[in-house]
Amino acid sequence: MDKLKVAILGATGAVGQRFIQLLDNHPWFEVAELVGSERSAGKPYIEAANWVLDGTPPTKIAHMTVKGLHDSLESPLVFSALPKEPALLREVELASAGHVVCTNASAHRMAEDVPLLLPEINADHIGLIDVQRRKRGWTSGALVANSNCTTMPVVMTLKPLMQFGITRLMMVSQQAISGAGYPGVASLDILDNIIPYVSGDEGKMETEPNKMLGKFNGDRIEAFEVISSATCTRVPVIDGHLVNISVSLAQQPTIDDIIQAWESFRGPAPVPSLPSAPQKPLQYLPQIDRPQPRRDRMFGNGMATSIGRLRQCPILGYKFVTLSHNTIRGAAGCSILNAELLAVSGYLGEFTPATVDRLQTGD
Amino acid sequence: MDKLKVAILGATGAVGQRFIQLLDNHPWFEVAELVGSERSAGKPYIEAANWVLDGTPPTKIAHMTVKGLHDSLESPLVFSALPKEPALLREVELASAGHVVCTNASAHRMAEDVPLLLPEINADHIGLIDVQRRKRGWTSGALVANSNCTTMPVVMTLKPLMQFGITRLMMVSQQAISGAGYPGVASLDILDNIIPYVSGDEGKMETEPNKMLGKFNGDRIEAFEVISSATCTRVPVIDGHLVNISVSLAQQPTIDDIIQAWESFRGPAPVPSLPSAPQKPLQYLPQIDRPQPRRDRMFGNGMATSIGRLRQCPILGYKFVTLSHNTIRGAAGCSILNAELLAVSGYLGEFTPATVDRLQTGD
Amino acid sequence: MDKLKVAILGATGAVGQRFIQLLDNHPWFEVAELVGSERSAGKPYIEAANWVLDGTPPTKIAHMTVKGLHDSLESPLVFSALPKEPALLREVELASAGHVVCTNASAHRMAEDVPLLLPEINADHIGLIDVQRRKRGWTSGALVANSNCTTMPVVMTLKPLMQFGITRLMMVSQQAISGAGYPGVASLDILDNIIPYVSGDEGKMETEPNKMLGKFNGDRIEAFEVISSATCTRVPVIDGHLVNISVSLAQQPTIDDIIQAWESFRGPAPVPSLPSAPQKPLQYLPQIDRPQPRRDRMFGNGMATSIGRLRQCPILGYKFVTLSHNTIRGAAGCSILNAELLAVSGYLGEFTPATVDRLQTGD
Amino acid sequence: MDKLKVAILGATGAVGQRFIQLLDNHPWFEVAELVGSERSAGKPYIEAANWVLDGTPPTKIAHMTVKGLHDSLESPLVFSALPKEPALLREVELASAGHVVCTNASAHRMAEDVPLLLPEINADHIGLIDVQRRKRGWTSGALVANSNCTTMPVVMTLKPLMQFGITRLMMVSQQAISGAGYPGVASLDILDNIIPYVSGDEGKMETEPNKMLGKFNGDRIEAFEVISSATCTRVPVIDGHLVNISVSLAQQPTIDDIIQAWESFRGPAPVPSLPSAPQKPLQYLPQIDRPQPRRDRMFGNGMATSIGRLRQCPILGYKFVTLSHNTIRGAAGCSILNAELLAVSGYLGEFTPATVDRLQTGD
Repeated sequence: MDKLKVAILGATGAVGQRFIQLLDNHPWFEVAELVGSERSAGKPYIEAANWVLDGTPPTKIAHMTVKGLHDSLESPLVFSALPKEPALLREVELASAGHVVCTNASAHRMAEDVPLLLPEINADHIGLIDVQRRKRGWTSGALVANSNCTTMPVVMTLKPLMQFGITRLMMVSQQAISGAGYPGVASLDILDNIIPYVSGDEGKMETEPNKMLGKFNGDRIEAFEVISSATCTRVPVIDGHLVNISVSLAQQPTIDDIIQAWESFRGPAPVPSLPSAPQKPLQYLPQIDRPQPRRDRMFGNGMATSIGRLRQCPILGYKFVTLSHNTIRGAAGCSILNAELLAVSGYLGEFTPATVDRLQTGD
Repeated sequence: MDKLKVAILGATGAVGQRFIQLLDNHPWFEVAELVGSERSAGKPYIEAANWVLDGTPPTKIAHMTVKGLHDSLESPLVFSALPKEPALLREVELASAGHVVCTNASAHRMAEDVPLLLPEINADHIGLIDVQRRKRGWTSGALVANSNCTTMPVVMTLKPLMQFGITRLMMVSQQAISGAGYPGVASLDILDNIIPYVSGDEGKMETEPNKMLGKFNGDRIEAFEVISSATCTRVPVIDGHLVNISVSLAQQPTIDDIIQAWESFRGPAPVPSLPSAPQKPLQYLPQIDRPQPRRDRMFGNGMATSIGRLRQCPILGYKFVTLSHNTIRGAAGCSILNAELLAVSGYLGEFTPATVDRLQTGD
Repeated sequence: MDKLKVAILGATGAVGQRFIQLLDNHPWFEVAELVGSERSAGKPYIEAANWVLDGTPPTKIAHMTVKGLHDSLESPLVFSALPKEPALLREVELASAGHVVCTNASAHRMAEDVPLLLPEINADHIGLIDVQRRKRGWTSGALVANSNCTTMPVVMTLKPLMQFGITRLMMVSQQAISGAGYPGVASLDILDNIIPYVSGDEGKMETEPNKMLGKFNGDRIEAFEVISSATCTRVPVIDGHLVNISVSLAQQPTIDDIIQAWESFRGPAPVPSLPSAPQKPLQYLPQIDRPQPRRDRMFGNGMATSIGRLRQCPILGYKFVTLSHNTIRGAAGCSILNAELLAVSGYLGEFTPATVDRLQTGD
Repeated sequence: MDKLKVAILGATGAVGQRFIQLLDNHPWFEVAELVGSERSAGKPYIEAANWVLDGTPPTKIAHMTVKGLHDSLESPLVFSALPKEPALLREVELASAGHVVCTNASAHRMAEDVPLLLPEINADHIGLIDVQRRKRGWTSGALVANSNCTTMPVVMTLKPLMQFGITRLMMVSQQAISGAGYPGVASLDILDNIIPYVSGDEGKMETEPNKMLGKFNGDRIEAFEVISSATCTRVPVIDGHLVNISVSLAQQPTIDDIIQAWESFRGPAPVPSLPSAPQKPLQYLPQIDRPQPRRDRMFGNGMATSIGRLRQCPILGYKFVTLSHNTIRGAAGCSILNAELLAVSGYLGEFTPATVDRLQTGD
């Protein structure tokens, strides 16, 4: 068995659970360590965690003992579902100690030498790891972030439009409750209701795309220049963040040009062949009333983005709706895809591209 | 008993029921005739209608016999909750036969000689009735419309900003299910879901404000010029339409200037003293996460509009959130307020301002 | 101004807020002191409390300073919305210090000398206060409890059936989320879901009715003997607990007998004339699909109980559905009604029945 | 390709869609004909059907032309998702014409010679087909029904308890909205609400178990004698019917005996090896608050039943909660499993057990 051992930080929380679920039977990675808060440390996972996803945790996970946040780890690869505060120090400590940390936390996203990686979009930003290692004196360790869960479908959707010259971007999101973790949103706040505010997310949506869509010049990311305005709201939906977008495109493509750009988009090699990559990262739905969170969030196993309602916007030129699953593509699933890209790119130490080949062919 | 007899068209539907509920114990008007479809005609109201509001219909209403759509009516004042198609002909027939028709239907809203009346905003548009009567050869009859339920909070909110020079307007709505009537939205379509489309509403939101905020020059309405872009979505909320707005204001007022303009807004005399007028048509909520549909829709008995989250918009200058109750202020309640304005303005025939005075003083 | 000053314990919580809302403009009582946790003490109420009810707190309340749980109080009458643990000691301390404590907490409900008071049902149990004072050596103080919020509609519904000889009682509840307080039920647990368990409530439903329907013999309550089985579930409803009941009645009355017993039920004098008493404590709804929580919970301003679907039960004889508002009749509203009964019964010290008369007549 | 061609009646409705979804890539059956109402006939499926399940219909289905209800069919096997009225005649016509009809409709369930088949429970009732054919003069045709969707989890749960002597059965259901089809339950009726009534279901739950748990004596079903009382309610849940059960067991087994009976239950050979059969038909969940519809409905791909909260009932002896997916196990999935049992039992004409073997081994 050549599978790479991985640890999950924040394993008892909602995103941590999604990591466990998505890594069950992963072809390359194997969950070896579960890390929780001090309150959870020492307990079997089944007792420490209140499993909020469907069904029950995988049997082998249920009986693993949860480690404390400051316990040392053996796993070369670490997925982090930590809240921002504990992530700040602990993720750096672990990377510094030689672990590759793929994190969903916001703590280090905007750090100059941390790639904000979304493989279909900016796989080449992975080169920033070399800069990071040089600058921080790390050898095997690394810190790779993925974006905010609402930024995700926006950036996925914008990438194929960059050829048309994006200049201004207006976004109004309708975000699922799972985006707030567990217990997260109180039912008394959201049943028969909308909360027109999501703490911190508007700022992230107005800045993360500029980094993610930027150009890696071998040394740093040159930010993509776009003026953005975001409004974030919380809605009574379990999973799936929907974003209403208006955008200005300098070259004024036709509606068909844009749909064609989305439908033909695949992302650069080797991304489409990674185990967690969706066959089709983007789908354009022709129905007048789609995408819808409940019906479209699981497209591409929750790793793909659905778009609909492309039409003229009297103010910015074009408007449409985009959707993706916030705890799969927008969180745990993206971190895993990032790690897969690191694997085939030789950034996971002894777990080399050759190891991957062996696992793939079953030799 | 001097109260004016009124008829309700479409009395068995969701908005028809709201008319009945709001007119129960109205100081000036008294429900005398209930009009339904041919299927309902001849039945007691309690059998013809599936009451979808809270509780049960008022006892005196429950036992009234429903009339057919084409039966002649005695009531001088007619409230219409008809769908667009039947409204088209029937409302004109009734106005032509001498009835004053206050309608919530969209059929005649954009007709050049029909006031799209929202008393706090454009009470002077009532003068268009004289034009209408002259043009159509009507003497006592009239046809007065109120706006789309989602347009309502937008226009209420914009009126006090006109002094600052509104040039562009971006709107993304989150609309309650009651806006689609009954049975309306299927539960399988909206539970744990968002529908990013509401048939017909985007066009209405992009055109009705121009008429409503326009200037009556004694002959016709000179449209207010503003470039608008609307996106309408349906959310799992019972009542209360929320609209996320970005707006450009030529004079670049401060945040405080705008809040002050909203908070001090009252509407022209005699509107604030009408029975259904809210004491305060607009309230600005300082909390970071308000207004919310469930918690704020009943402000001012459902007749007032709540605003929140005013802040800079990097693209259009200002953004904020507005909310009002879609079947009270946005439908039946507004028609009733319109009729009250007609009463004190002498447009209800023998039910003169003097009659109103007698009812008010109890003499 | 003769109004009696009252204090509210647990004033920042969901039931505490309901006390504030229901006491706004109460004809006899006036909120003078708000008591919260140590975290809240010293802050203005508006800052200490996250108001979860509709709208915003009454202005005069918003600016009152919250006291700490152990601060001494001036108000002769104290309403308690404390959780069980802090209620245990603090309520006794306050009663012992001379305050009359009307509590919604479960801590003392089953104590032998504490009346579990539901005025329409067992107003005479108020005499237990004399026993309590004698036994505990209290002079002006007293401790009066109201029942669990799900027990409430059951007991209201059973009282008029006692004449038929109740022997066995099967209950399956569907309880609103507000019953769990705030933040209470996580939205991730209840959206598109049912939780077939409510901690502690089944035991309460199987024991409290026996005490409440028991007979006060001048010295203690002789329990009413009935065998009960309860199942409690949580459903995605904001307010209103619905209970599906099957019951055995020894005398096998007709369906009409039972409906007549409910419809004619009023409760003993002077209860029906108390300010918070509903005009009609029970209504039987003939519609096949009622009562429903959203549509019927506000019957009688949330103080009355609705019943429907009475029919034969092949096992126990009769089955039906009952509903009441859990935070009004089932919590704060009942405590207030209890206090009103104490007032007219002379148990509130210097706030005598004569004071009540003066307030009523405005002299 | 040896797969058996099948037709789906009522293919555009909610249960019809579930048939299509579950038959996609079925190892033995292949959808060849889609039958809709006259309104749908002649249209491509994608235009005729409003797909209400997740995602979009399988591509090959989307472009098939829908047939009318009275068109003749080629497929030997017919799945019916018809409403009761059209099912009454059409299903008999088709069986009479030689088709094997596996129906989810209630029209013929209680007919003496129609098996009400639930393979794990009463696979031997399949013998009733011989009686049916003899009696009706059919040769290759047959009519096989599955039970009401709420009866399903009840009967699954009771079967292993029959050894303990079931005498009385009390049921209170909480049923998902998908049970009412599409458009089905209006969102205005169910959001923030419970409807304590489901038309027709209480009667079915009180009679169907007696037939299903009965004994086939070679000639007819001898009903199982149990006194049942059912209450059915509708709740705001998408999929998954939950039933709260109290039951009397003559032999008074221990709690552990019962759990053991459920956990070890597998159903008779060859049922467990059928393609749609769940590995484990029943699971007992030890958590205090399970099963829950959203979290447990997909257990066993929606074909298995989850049970929880087994405890003493002071009145009937035992109580517990059971749950299964109403449109998979409770409808389309059960019809398909029934057809699979017919296949391996030689009731599908030329599609013999040998054909099945060939398909299984891929020869």
